Amino acid sequence: MKDLSIGIDIGGTNTVIGLVDRDGNFRAENSISTSKYTEVEDYIEALTAAINESLNSVTENFVLKGIGIGAPNGNYYNGCIEFAPNLNWKGKVPLVELLNKNFRVPISLTNDANAAAMGEMIYGAAKGMKNFIVITLGTGLGSGLIVDGKLVYGHDGFAGEVGHTIYDPNGRLCGCGRKGCLETYASATGIKKTVLELLEKPGAKSSLSSIPESEISSKKIYEAAVAGDKLALEAFDFTARILGLKLADSVAYLSPEAIFLFGGLALSGDYILKPTKKYMEENLLKIFKNKVKLEISGLMGKNAAVLGAAGLIWSEIE
Amino acid sequence: MKDLSIGIDIGGTNTVIGLVDRDGNFRAENSISTSKYTEVEDYIEALTAAINESLNSVTENFVLKGIGIGAPNGNYYNGCIEFAPNLNWKGKVPLVELLNKNFRVPISLTNDANAAAMGEMIYGAAKGMKNFIVITLGTGLGSGLIVDGKLVYGHDGFAGEVGHTIYDPNGRLCGCGRKGCLETYASATGIKKTVLELLEKPGAKSSLSSIPESEISSKKIYEAAVAGDKLALEAFDFTARILGLKLADSVAYLSPEAIFLFGGLALSGDYILKPTKKYMEENLLKIFKNKVKLEISGLMGKNAAVLGAAGLIWSEIE
Repeated sequence: MKDLSIGIDIGGTNTVIGLVDRDGNFRAENSISTSKYTEVEDYIEALTAAINESLNSVTENFVLKGIGIGAPNGNYYNGCIEFAPNLNWKGKVPLVELLNKNFRVPISLTNDANAAAMGEMIYGAAKGMKNFIVITLGTGLGSGLIVDGKLVYGHDGFAGEVGHTIYDPNGRLCGCGRKGCLETYASATGIKKTVLELLEKPGAKSSLSSIPESEISSKKIYEAAVAGDKLALEAFDFTARILGLKLADSVAYLSPEAIFLFGGLALSGDYILKPTKKYMEENLLKIFKNKVKLEISGLMGKNAAVLGAAGLIWSEIE
Repeated sequence: MKDLSIGIDIGGTNTVIGLVDRDGNFRAENSISTSKYTEVEDYIEALTAAINESLNSVTENFVLKGIGIGAPNGNYYNGCIEFAPNLNWKGKVPLVELLNKNFRVPISLTNDANAAAMGEMIYGAAKGMKNFIVITLGTGLGSGLIVDGKLVYGHDGFAGEVGHTIYDPNGRLCGCGRKGCLETYASATGIKKTVLELLEKPGAKSSLSSIPESEISSKKIYEAAVAGDKLALEAFDFTARILGLKLADSVAYLSPEAIFLFGGLALSGDYILKPTKKYMEENLLKIFKNKVKLEISGLMGKNAAVLGAAGLIWSEIE
């Protein structure tokens, strides 16, 4: 009988569910709203129905090996979503416990960036690697650290907050309440902020100045850069200088074989990758120079979050 | 029969050898010069004689479980000392291979900060901890990272270079050739540099101004601080502000249960510990606040480097 596992990606708006095999083939996909359920019990009921629908849609025999979940502020150790700012449910939500009442299989929870790193290791460009880092450049900057083939959770399950290492103690205000966190610069939100700052400079010229502020996005900035817009290119350079500097610190900590960039801003490909690589190399300690790969994730375009969540289960079996 | 292991601490000047049991009791101690041997083969011959002398001095029966070595730039993976600036032997020195010709037991090599972390885990204040960091504040700043009960070596064996994470890209020149590395501020050398800078300010008053520059040390600065010298206290505060900020980054990476300070500057006790703790807490992400212990090493005054090197062997057996 075939072994399958369920991967669940809980986002602020939607929850995506996939039933996948060890090779990453989707046997069933489903999704429900996250945001419409104000009570977690109602959400669990809807999620249970959606999972069962996926399980029942497969005609061949199979063994469900487990359910892996990636969610903002998901804590691997206690199976709780803890104080997630973008979800309706406040405080500590014992998601694994609640779901286990309906599914008597191993259930693992972690945060979305950790799930992305797991997906990269099992299905992506990090296959066979034992030490690497995945950086997700979305609304914020998330990170999943793999040391010796395993996700780093740390003492309390919250390791890997590279987005909240400090670039400039007097810098941009961060959503976390502090100043100058890396993610205020190096993220889809960060590069937009950079563009807005550059547009305010006297004499600034850019095709982006004709777009309403609310519509400026990392995708629009990328398109402007491709068209040769100097201000957009300057924004990429500024972002890359800070990201490259801090990734040199990441290398000093963990000596990874590779760092993978993932998420919205990583869709800009070489426009973010090449300058980041340049600045990272400039700032690397000599023993690390020209040794560490910096690449775009091998899972871009695929449903990496679901694959990674499912990967939590394979990783625990193997 | 009792199990014993040899711990060897290779310093730039001297090499210290200890024959210890699992509980950290020394059964024999010995030392040789490091610096007088310009050829590594001659050094290995002297080291072999010293080890044999220690082994032969024990009258009861025992089993030698292995030899652990802590050395600057010691690489765990390949057993080589690689390009150590303070040793006579240039390039890659295959220390483990050379010593194994004379001792047919498991031999492990790592760098001195990693050995200190191993010592802390097996014999010191980190007993029973699975996730912690040891920071050695000596001539430079070394660090040993323990994740999930194991030393982090990374892809090429050089993980844990926290001393070379960058505090200020335009800051003090570092021995590594770059600028603003943490160790140029937070180390015995760094605080001396800070004192010299403070003494140059117009109107500076300090008991330290009467000491010749070459004699100012972290010990002298500590003594001045104890006597209430304001400039010395300011130097501790300045050092702690930078160290605390960067340790908050360390917590964001690894979510350790504790961070231990070790080495010359750590002998200043609360004078370095208290302000560092204050600044670290100020800079911690909310989820980490008031959770992470910051303490002086439990091995200060003991021969931690030798114990830690011996600990490499116990850790691999267990």
